[in-house]
Amino acid sequence: MAGQRPGAPIRAGIPEHGRIPKYYAVKTRVAALLDELGEGGLLPTERELAARFEVSRETVRQALRELLLEGRLRRMGRGTVVAGPKLEQPLSLASYTEGVRRQGRRPGRALIGLDRLSCPAGLAPDLGVAPGEPVWHMERVLLADDERVGLESTYVAVARVPSLDAGFAPDSSFYGYLRECLGISFGDADERLETVLATPREALLIGTPPALPMLLIHRVSRDTEGRPLERVRSLYRGDRFSFTTHLRGGDQPG
Amino acid sequence: MAGQRPGAPIRAGIPEHGRIPKYYAVKTRVAALLDELGEGGLLPTERELAARFEVSRETVRQALRELLLEGRLRRMGRGTVVAGPKLEQPLSLASYTEGVRRQGRRPGRALIGLDRLSCPAGLAPDLGVAPGEPVWHMERVLLADDERVGLESTYVAVARVPSLDAGFAPDSSFYGYLRECLGISFGDADERLETVLATPREALLIGTPPALPMLLIHRVSRDTEGRPLERVRSLYRGDRFSFTTHLRGGDQPG
Repeated sequence: MAGQRPGAPIRAGIPEHGRIPKYYAVKTRVAALLDELGEGGLLPTERELAARFEVSRETVRQALRELLLEGRLRRMGRGTVVAGPKLEQPLSLASYTEGVRRQGRRPGRALIGLDRLSCPAGLAPDLGVAPGEPVWHMERVLLADDERVGLESTYVAVARVPSLDAGFAPDSSFYGYLRECLGISFGDADERLETVLATPREALLIGTPPALPMLLIHRVSRDTEGRPLERVRSLYRGDRFSFTTHLRGGDQPG
Repeated sequence: MAGQRPGAPIRAGIPEHGRIPKYYAVKTRVAALLDELGEGGLLPTERELAARFEVSRETVRQALRELLLEGRLRRMGRGTVVAGPKLEQPLSLASYTEGVRRQGRRPGRALIGLDRLSCPAGLAPDLGVAPGEPVWHMERVLLADDERVGLESTYVAVARVPSLDAGFAPDSSFYGYLRECLGISFGDADERLETVLATPREALLIGTPPALPMLLIHRVSRDTEGRPLERVRSLYRGDRFSFTTHLRGGDQPG
């Protein structure tokens, strides 16, 4: 019931009409086993689980696949272990670095590429430049304790950050660099959050199975004077992240 | 490039090392075809697509499966059509009803069940009652123009809303009822957003394929005097919804 795992679905496995799929019944039993084993505990092999639950290895595999996609399990070397809880990131301008640190993990970023390109028409308004003007595209893998957990793609006008290729250490905070070296402070941002499937390239860069559900955040931000600043596409492993926000009254819900 | 679809990944299909999976190359070509056909356009059959792209029907099926999960395609009767854009919901206390209306669609809710139960220990602090005291569990399917798009599970203490089973029309706004009939106004709420896979029961109730990625929002709210009010588990089809938020400065990003 709701008492066990906060927020868990009620009567999760029981369709009102119809039968519980066999793989789902196995998934429920494996999930109970994970609670017993605790974080980091080693899961029995597929063969052992199939014998224990008297089902085919294919059925076990389907159950484990969903538990992996949901972040309840993690591959470790040749074994599979019980995963820890998802990282909670605040949805605020104080973002990745601080959010990861707050949970006692070490944030990091690894540069994939820094390109200078002519601004496409669709991007120009967000960056406050004319189409064709030079913009930077910086792509970095997000790390937590050296684990690859996301991919961040930043677009910013070269005119605003002329020496990004020379003056910026790509494993540091871009926002810190803007503030300390260029005196640019964030004013506000619009964000849109959705779930998407990882592309093959993204899956390769982040080291996830292809088609893993990801959380994608689109951000368009402006400085304190309202001038367009950057557009960012941040992709987070859906099995490793959740996002939190605090809502205040005033608005009446409908 | 970034000019075509805002927020689309750059070099989406091209792993830095390694080859483009065949199904992904087909997916990219089908996606281009969807842009040509436009919203509501009828997709050629699997057989026709397999012939056109000179690949197996299994490869076409894998490509279409991802496009369906991502909400670019929709099943309609026996055919498959190009889907419209995802609904954008503001992440604010003014929630479902207003968000759907703002996009010119008709919001609705269908009651699945209203149960009275003894409060489990894990739920008690969020509702401000002792374990074992009576609480309501109300479950409703969320509708947009009669399409089932989500599932909402609300827990609230019977002591706060004594006649929920008699005085409330389940297709109306619960928040409107609290405000107008009980004089309870929302103060603030904590929300946590993540991606999960639909359970078989949820998939059946919402009418989605099982294991469709969903967006799950956990909400714990308080009234204007800070007293605990409700806990809500809202599940939205990941192929039909995105969530938006506006961030203001003050906080400096890290």
